[in-house]
Amino acid sequence: MTLNIGIIGLGFMGSDHVKRVATKINGARLAGVADLKQDLAEKYAKEYGAKIYKSGIDLIDSPDIDAVMVVTRPHETHEQFVLHAIEIGKYVFCEKPLTLTAAGCKKIVDAEVKGGKRLVQVGFMRRFDPGYIEIKKAIDDHVYGEPLLIHATHRNCSVDETYDTSMSIIETAIHEADVLHWLLGEDYESGTTFLPKKQTKYTHSKLHDPQIITLDTKSGVHIDLEVFVNDQIGYDINCSVVCENGIISLRSPFNSSVKKGLYDQTYIPKDCTERFATAYDNEIQEWVNGVEADKVTGPSSWDGLVAMVTCDALAKSRDNDAERVAIVLPDKKPSLY
Amino acid sequence: MTLNIGIIGLGFMGSDHVKRVATKINGARLAGVADLKQDLAEKYAKEYGAKIYKSGIDLIDSPDIDAVMVVTRPHETHEQFVLHAIEIGKYVFCEKPLTLTAAGCKKIVDAEVKGGKRLVQVGFMRRFDPGYIEIKKAIDDHVYGEPLLIHATHRNCSVDETYDTSMSIIETAIHEADVLHWLLGEDYESGTTFLPKKQTKYTHSKLHDPQIITLDTKSGVHIDLEVFVNDQIGYDINCSVVCENGIISLRSPFNSSVKKGLYDQTYIPKDCTERFATAYDNEIQEWVNGVEADKVTGPSSWDGLVAMVTCDALAKSRDNDAERVAIVLPDKKPSLY
Amino acid sequence: MTLNIGIIGLGFMGSDHVKRVATKINGARLAGVADLKQDLAEKYAKEYGAKIYKSGIDLIDSPDIDAVMVVTRPHETHEQFVLHAIEIGKYVFCEKPLTLTAAGCKKIVDAEVKGGKRLVQVGFMRRFDPGYIEIKKAIDDHVYGEPLLIHATHRNCSVDETYDTSMSIIETAIHEADVLHWLLGEDYESGTTFLPKKQTKYTHSKLHDPQIITLDTKSGVHIDLEVFVNDQIGYDINCSVVCENGIISLRSPFNSSVKKGLYDQTYIPKDCTERFATAYDNEIQEWVNGVEADKVTGPSSWDGLVAMVTCDALAKSRDNDAERVAIVLPDKKPSLY
Amino acid sequence: MTLNIGIIGLGFMGSDHVKRVATKINGARLAGVADLKQDLAEKYAKEYGAKIYKSGIDLIDSPDIDAVMVVTRPHETHEQFVLHAIEIGKYVFCEKPLTLTAAGCKKIVDAEVKGGKRLVQVGFMRRFDPGYIEIKKAIDDHVYGEPLLIHATHRNCSVDETYDTSMSIIETAIHEADVLHWLLGEDYESGTTFLPKKQTKYTHSKLHDPQIITLDTKSGVHIDLEVFVNDQIGYDINCSVVCENGIISLRSPFNSSVKKGLYDQTYIPKDCTERFATAYDNEIQEWVNGVEADKVTGPSSWDGLVAMVTCDALAKSRDNDAERVAIVLPDKKPSLY
Ligand SMILES: [Mg+2]
Ligand SMILES: [Mg+2]
Ligand SMILES: [Mg+2]
Ligand SMILES: [Mg+2]
Repeated sequence: MTLNIGIIGLGFMGSDHVKRVATKINGARLAGVADLKQDLAEKYAKEYGAKIYKSGIDLIDSPDIDAVMVVTRPHETHEQFVLHAIEIGKYVFCEKPLTLTAAGCKKIVDAEVKGGKRLVQVGFMRRFDPGYIEIKKAIDDHVYGEPLLIHATHRNCSVDETYDTSMSIIETAIHEADVLHWLLGEDYESGTTFLPKKQTKYTHSKLHDPQIITLDTKSGVHIDLEVFVNDQIGYDINCSVVCENGIISLRSPFNSSVKKGLYDQTYIPKDCTERFATAYDNEIQEWVNGVEADKVTGPSSWDGLVAMVTCDALAKSRDNDAERVAIVLPDKKPSLY
Repeated sequence: MTLNIGIIGLGFMGSDHVKRVATKINGARLAGVADLKQDLAEKYAKEYGAKIYKSGIDLIDSPDIDAVMVVTRPHETHEQFVLHAIEIGKYVFCEKPLTLTAAGCKKIVDAEVKGGKRLVQVGFMRRFDPGYIEIKKAIDDHVYGEPLLIHATHRNCSVDETYDTSMSIIETAIHEADVLHWLLGEDYESGTTFLPKKQTKYTHSKLHDPQIITLDTKSGVHIDLEVFVNDQIGYDINCSVVCENGIISLRSPFNSSVKKGLYDQTYIPKDCTERFATAYDNEIQEWVNGVEADKVTGPSSWDGLVAMVTCDALAKSRDNDAERVAIVLPDKKPSLY
Repeated sequence: MTLNIGIIGLGFMGSDHVKRVATKINGARLAGVADLKQDLAEKYAKEYGAKIYKSGIDLIDSPDIDAVMVVTRPHETHEQFVLHAIEIGKYVFCEKPLTLTAAGCKKIVDAEVKGGKRLVQVGFMRRFDPGYIEIKKAIDDHVYGEPLLIHATHRNCSVDETYDTSMSIIETAIHEADVLHWLLGEDYESGTTFLPKKQTKYTHSKLHDPQIITLDTKSGVHIDLEVFVNDQIGYDINCSVVCENGIISLRSPFNSSVKKGLYDQTYIPKDCTERFATAYDNEIQEWVNGVEADKVTGPSSWDGLVAMVTCDALAKSRDNDAERVAIVLPDKKPSLY
Repeated sequence: MTLNIGIIGLGFMGSDHVKRVATKINGARLAGVADLKQDLAEKYAKEYGAKIYKSGIDLIDSPDIDAVMVVTRPHETHEQFVLHAIEIGKYVFCEKPLTLTAAGCKKIVDAEVKGGKRLVQVGFMRRFDPGYIEIKKAIDDHVYGEPLLIHATHRNCSVDETYDTSMSIIETAIHEADVLHWLLGEDYESGTTFLPKKQTKYTHSKLHDPQIITLDTKSGVHIDLEVFVNDQIGYDINCSVVCENGIISLRSPFNSSVKKGLYDQTYIPKDCTERFATAYDNEIQEWVNGVEADKVTGPSSWDGLVAMVTCDALAKSRDNDAERVAIVLPDKKPSLY
């Protein structure tokens, strides 16, 4: 059977998913699109033979759409679409962050739990990246003994003026907040956010850049994370897990190297759609497979909530002179997850 | 529309393609399988909900099959299936080598030309590998000036006793024979095959291993190629193109690195399905897209013929003390290609 | 002229310096040795044709010794020898740490200032390492713009039971304390030492391992440093300086790489004498050249004092739950330095 | 004791050795210099406090000179100085090539044999490079089993118009001719030199660039060598030894890496004095130690002769359409070597 996918939101990430669903995913087709910008909707509808829906809600409600992807910006709009999909019992994939508040995430978790069925997958694509998967397998198989420390960096080429200090956590560090506790298989105990006095000249008045985050897990693994979103060098994601018997490090993939002008060089990807192309493909393929099998197993609403609670603690630390802030989940993980 | 694919031959490569078509390719489904080994046919038919055909010819003839993949061994069997598909006007993908003789390839080219339509794609998957594509783009765009030399290695972990001296050319070097002249965009002038006196202890009496091949193109680019099929280290494919202003080299992809026990190490893939997984996916996706669009543009029967003519010259050199042997194509490239 | 060098202390580092002076340094010869362990003194005296002195003080006082190297352990013994050399106006090289207390360093600085001549060089060899020198030059020449962050690791294979929690700072992190502010050309503002709850099973009851240190400079550059002295992987020193326009990283040197058994690997040195062999050679050569020219310019007593004040702040932070501790130098840098 | 070294020839390599002897070598001092260019002699005599000799012969004859280094150009001048040193029984280090003809080398060998004492060391510095030494040790210790193949490149940034086709062998490939059979511990059986039709635009009418050389050893190890002296990328020396159980490769050393502008890069040295600085230091230190001990063990006149016989065979092949030419040593190795 071929699954009919509808996508709401056709911007940078949305258009990337549109192309993915239409041309790369097995067992799925792009059936419908919706965007407030009518020209975008028309462009992709025409290119891939999809139907245009007047609104996200209309798309969700349509009997011609088997499952929905929510890729809207601003992210505040995620919540209504996800809740509506849950309400009518339709599978929905939502890009991260699930919502911009822990309260919003909690509302979604509660709705899903009330419905009694996992319908939501959150776009934490790194869990589907071959590199992170290799590292997780090494940790799970105890290949290098117990993990002790993680050093991570999340670096972007540059951001525009709409990106402010809060987003370094809520838009950027949220990826590590999710993927690192998944890697380690345990929850966080506390976190800190430190704003070093010296900033890059490439930033603007509303953005403190770079920022330094730490996280400590329940068992005592210590994590440090550099978030630097105007690095000028590329989209440079690093993660080294220091274990008792060895250190395993994520490596950015490249396909060729060049020697020229006294240098031997390899390429650094320029953005997330390039760096994590395979991860995004795997993520959506597994989601489609899950929907087809009526059992979705990717990152859940609960994972979306955990990430947002973590971000809230980091923001509180940032606003309180880098004090250590406890990371406390609202209640026990529901048995649904 | 979803294309119904039938696959003939379910061995090492055939089963890899079965899984690919069934689970990774967009716009296609595994509709039918055929193999002399009935248990293999039953296994994959059951696993992916495909129909079993009694013979390859039955599968090709079936109106339920839109396009055919020929992955049979021994490779002598390719010819009959490809010719039959051409005869009834059905698209056919055939693993390399297209046939084991230049004469066989010529028969296929002639049949296709007579039919007046390109129906065949040959499994030279490296043309779809991101690394080779990067290199080709650099050459085509003249980024580092004119190419002058190529150094290549084709190394396998090990082979069994059915693999003999002739296969180092016809099964293994054939990949470079195809991909290197495609990279350079020109035909070969001559080639040599040298059998170094010293051989690995891991070989057997019917196999001279390693072997050294050279190829020179019409414009005078010189290529050397090590073929070593019992290297004990992994599937290690290298290709460095020395240009006037720089040297661009293929790099085997890895996703993580490990420091342990005084060494910093990265992984070498163990076989072609692992090393070229992305290339195979892209190859079949583009073939499916081509069939869907009724216009296949991947490696053609003509490319299969050129590769076999090249292999014949290399074999002649090997049997004549590494003398330089001219590489002469049978006639002009038909306008169909 | 050939300088007659006397070396006090013939243990791990002392014997390394003995060999260096006797066989690698231009313009110098090993003239005398002293060690409480008489057999060590005899061994090296015989091997290199040097004279044995009954005590360090005797060696310093000898008119046959032009300049002295103090490489004794325990490090408490450095102070007396250095002070005695200053007193009689003889050049003295002293391994780090200069003394084990800021007060002891201060005494040496005061004695030297009173004498009115720089006579002491401290063994911070990293300032002579080609990698650190490349990084310093890039920073000084502003090649990648302003430095913003430094990530560093100081990892050792393993330590024995005499190495305790305090030594991670005073014996190990002291190298980074010195070299990083030298790299940046500015003083520290504050530091922290955090003891992550999770420790390696390879440590013992008196050693908390690993430890995480941070330093912030006056201008606001933020540094994080992992100190891990039972890493089981090698002597793994890393330093990445994140600048506004690029990131420059120290690379551990290797001379060959090996592919075997599905891995491509390079070597990690096993200890400091191997990793920093060139740095040690350069350090002692420049010291000998300085003595010969009657003008020593390497790391001074003041640098030894600054490092110790930094270590004291880090120790205080460690004992106070990782609180941020100001790093305050005792007074202005004397004009002698 | 400090050895008084005299250096004849103060050009590119000569001045590098002058600085080395004067400032880096233990147990030696620069005592005298001679060069036809009087200003060069004055410059270095003044800089390092050495005496100027009117001629090379005067320098060799001087009782104030303990041992001599011959670094003159053109290389034809080597022979007279080396023979004169042998005649008066003085140790002499001579840069490669020892002479420009096998006959000249033979004359030196004969003179040395007649004198009954090894007095000559030839400047094949690569035998003192840590990378080649690691590879030789691995081969000698049989760590990866029997060596089967070697792939090598000798690339230079660029050469001027005085460098012609013959020099690619006699000035450049001579290094590999020496170091590779030393690595393998056996003599060559035959060699070929192939001039690929396509040449770099950076060459000139008297120079065919690049060139491809092969060598086969007595036991049957096959070697291919790219000589490319206008590569525009740096001084890029590579050597991979393919063994039965692993492949060991020389790696050009670097001390730091840089990420900037979408690339992660490491440095390629620009010439031999930079790439092989450590090898040159070790070479001269060991020579000085040998002279001091009255027993020189580095590359001998015989090695110089073997290299030149090899070069002659390669030149003959080049002039005869790349035919395979036997490499035949003039007679048995004298027992002196
Ligand atoms: Mg995402
Ligand atoms: Mg194939
Ligand atoms: Mg030291
Ligand atoms: Mg040389």
